[in-house]
Amino acid sequence: MFTFKLLAGSGSGGPRLGLMTTPRGQVETPAFMPVGTYATVKTLTPEEVRGLGAQIILSNVYHLYLRPGVELIRRLGGLNRFMNWPGPILTDSGGFQIFSLAPFRTLSEEGVTFRSHLNGDLHMLTPERVVALQEELGVDIMMCLDECPPYPCPEGELKRATELTGRWARRSLAAWRQQGPALFAIVQGGTRADWRREQAQELGELPFSGFALGGLSVGEPKELTFAMMEAALPVLPVEKPRYIMGMGLPEDLVEGVARGADLFDCVIPTRNARNGQVFTAQGALMIRHAAYAEDPRPLEEGCGCYTCRHYSRAYVRHLFQAREMLAYRLLTLHNLYYYLSLMARMRQAVKAGRFPEFYREFYRQRQSGGEARG
Amino acid sequence: MFTFKLLAGSGSGGPRLGLMTTPRGQVETPAFMPVGTYATVKTLTPEEVRGLGAQIILSNVYHLYLRPGVELIRRLGGLNRFMNWPGPILTDSGGFQIFSLAPFRTLSEEGVTFRSHLNGDLHMLTPERVVALQEELGVDIMMCLDECPPYPCPEGELKRATELTGRWARRSLAAWRQQGPALFAIVQGGTRADWRREQAQELGELPFSGFALGGLSVGEPKELTFAMMEAALPVLPVEKPRYIMGMGLPEDLVEGVARGADLFDCVIPTRNARNGQVFTAQGALMIRHAAYAEDPRPLEEGCGCYTCRHYSRAYVRHLFQAREMLAYRLLTLHNLYYYLSLMARMRQAVKAGRFPEFYREFYRQRQSGGEARG
Repeated sequence: MFTFKLLAGSGSGGPRLGLMTTPRGQVETPAFMPVGTYATVKTLTPEEVRGLGAQIILSNVYHLYLRPGVELIRRLGGLNRFMNWPGPILTDSGGFQIFSLAPFRTLSEEGVTFRSHLNGDLHMLTPERVVALQEELGVDIMMCLDECPPYPCPEGELKRATELTGRWARRSLAAWRQQGPALFAIVQGGTRADWRREQAQELGELPFSGFALGGLSVGEPKELTFAMMEAALPVLPVEKPRYIMGMGLPEDLVEGVARGADLFDCVIPTRNARNGQVFTAQGALMIRHAAYAEDPRPLEEGCGCYTCRHYSRAYVRHLFQAREMLAYRLLTLHNLYYYLSLMARMRQAVKAGRFPEFYREFYRQRQSGGEARG
Repeated sequence: MFTFKLLAGSGSGGPRLGLMTTPRGQVETPAFMPVGTYATVKTLTPEEVRGLGAQIILSNVYHLYLRPGVELIRRLGGLNRFMNWPGPILTDSGGFQIFSLAPFRTLSEEGVTFRSHLNGDLHMLTPERVVALQEELGVDIMMCLDECPPYPCPEGELKRATELTGRWARRSLAAWRQQGPALFAIVQGGTRADWRREQAQELGELPFSGFALGGLSVGEPKELTFAMMEAALPVLPVEKPRYIMGMGLPEDLVEGVARGADLFDCVIPTRNARNGQVFTAQGALMIRHAAYAEDPRPLEEGCGCYTCRHYSRAYVRHLFQAREMLAYRLLTLHNLYYYLSLMARMRQAVKAGRFPEFYREFYRQRQSGGEARG
C-alpha cells in the first residue's frame, strides 16, 4: 500500500520533509532517485546503489519495452527480481523518451506511434498500454504517459500537448487498477506559468498517488524552471509527493527542495561521471585535466565515499585516461554518493529547522572553491 | 623476504603443492594470477579480486612505464598503494609486450629500442633498467627482460633470441639488489625442447627466486606447449617456484599443474568475459546467444559466485546486449571465480593425494556438458 506522510513543511512553498511508504520499503523525502534506464544503474551493482544511501531508483518503461521487452521481464519475475533490486522502483512512462529519442513518431488522440531508436521497428503506445506495461514490470510507482514538448515550443503546439497530457492522465487514471503500483500524474505546460498552474490544479483534484512536473530542464533558462515550480507546486494537494522530472545539477536539487519538491531524478551524476566530471561541495572538476596527474588527494577532501577513502585523483585520472571501466565505477560511486549525501543533509536541515543556514552554506562552499570549481 | 616451500610433489614432474611467502603475504600454489595490466584487474575493485580468492595479481611494467609512468607511481607510494591492492604483485618485464605490441623495435645486445604503441614516442629499455623500474614500482616479484620470439620462428632467429634472453637474465641478476622484490628468470627456446632444457639448466643454477617459461601459448600447437614444459620443468631446481607465462584456458591450467607448474597468469578469463564468454565446468558458453534470452538459470548452475547467486542468464545477456558495463563486471566476476576455484580445487586434490581423480572428473564434466560447451 502506497502512502505519503508529510512530516515538516507545507504545500505552499518552502522545503518539506516526508516519508513515502511503498510495498517494497520506505523513502525519506526529499529524495534523489538514481537512474537505471536499462534495469541497471550504470556500472554499479544494486548493493552498491543501496550502500550509497539510495532508497528508490528510477527505470524506464520505454527502454525496457524495446529491450529486453516487458513480457520477458514479467516472465522472469518482474523488474525487481530481474535486476536484483529489492527496494522501490519508479518507472518513467516513456513520454520524454519517445519525444526525444524515437524517430518518425506520429501522435494521435489515441496514443503515439513511433519507431524504435534501436532497430526502427514500429510501435504504438497508449496511456492505457503504458499503465499495463508498468503493472507487468511490477514496479512501485508508475508514471502516466505524457507528451513532453520541447523548449522552445510554439504556443499552439504547447497548448495542444499540455491538454493532450491532461486527457491522457485521466485515461491513465481510468485504466489504473489501483492495486499494486501507485500512479503519478505528470503536469506539463512548458514555460507558461498559467498553464502549469491550471493543469496542476485540475490534475491535483484527481485521486493520483502523486504528481510530477515534466518538461522541465529541457533547455529553458533556470529562472523559468524555478518559476514553473513556484507556479505549479503550491496548487498541488499538500499531502501528496511532488516530483520534478529529470532535474538536475546539485544546485537545482537545492533550489527544488527550497521550493517544496519531494522527488528528483537525473542522469547527470552517473552520465557525467562517465565523462570524467566529479561533483564536490566546492563545485565540479574534470578528472582528465593534467593538473590532477600526480595529485595524491582524493576526488574530494573529507568525502567518505569508497573512491575517496581508497584512491587518489592521480589513480582515477590514470584509469580514466586509459579508459579503464573501473574509472567509470569509481567516478559514478563518488558522484552518486555526493548527490545522495546532499539530499540527506537537506533532509536533516529541514528536520532541524535550519534549511536557510544549509542553503547559505551550500553556496558559500562553492564560492570558496579553488581549482575544484565547475 | 621471499621464500618458497614445497609441501607436496617433486621437481621431476607431476603436480606440486607449495607456499610462496612474500613481504605482502602468502600465496598457495599452484596459483592463478589475475591480470591487472594498467594497475587494475579490468572492471573490478581490489576488494572484489581478493574476495574471489586471488592471493597475488600480475601487472606489467611495460604498460605502466608508458602510462602513467613508473616515476609517477613511485612518487605516489608505489604500485600497491596506487591501486589499493595490499597483496603481492608480480610484474612482467615487458619482453612479451615489446615484441607483440610495439612498432619499430630495434634490438641490440644492450637492450631494445621501441616506439610506444600509444603515441609513437621512442623508448630504450635494458635488462638493468627493467629491474630498476620494477624496484621503483615496489612490487614483490620482478621478471627479467627477455626477448620473446614468435611462433613459428626461423631457427637462427630463435637461437639468437634464446641466447640473448639468457645473457639478459644474467645481467638482470647482476643488477638486482637482492633486497625487496624477488627476481624470476625467464626461460625461452621456442618449441625446441633441447634449447628449453639447456636454458632451464643453465639459469636454474643461478640464484634467481624463481623461474618462468616464456614464449609459450603464442600460437604453437598445444602438444608442443606441454612438451616444452615437460622438457624444461624437471631440470629446474625443485625448491623454487615455476611459472608458465600467459597460459591459458582452464584445461591448460589443469595440464600445467599435472606437469608440475606452480604459477599461471592469463588475460583469458577477464578478456573473454568482456566478449561474453562464460567458463563453466561443462565448458564455455557465449552469453549473447539467443538461447539465453529468457533463461532463468544462473550462468553456471551450482556456482557460488556473486553473479550466479543473484542474476539469471537472461539478465546478464540483456546487459551484455545493451553494452552495459555491469555485464562486463558480472561476467568477469564469474570467470575469475571459476579460474580461482579451479586452482583451489586442484590444490585440495594434490593435498589429498587424489589429483588423478580430479583430472578424470574435470574432463568427464566437460564431456557431459550439453549446451554449455565451448
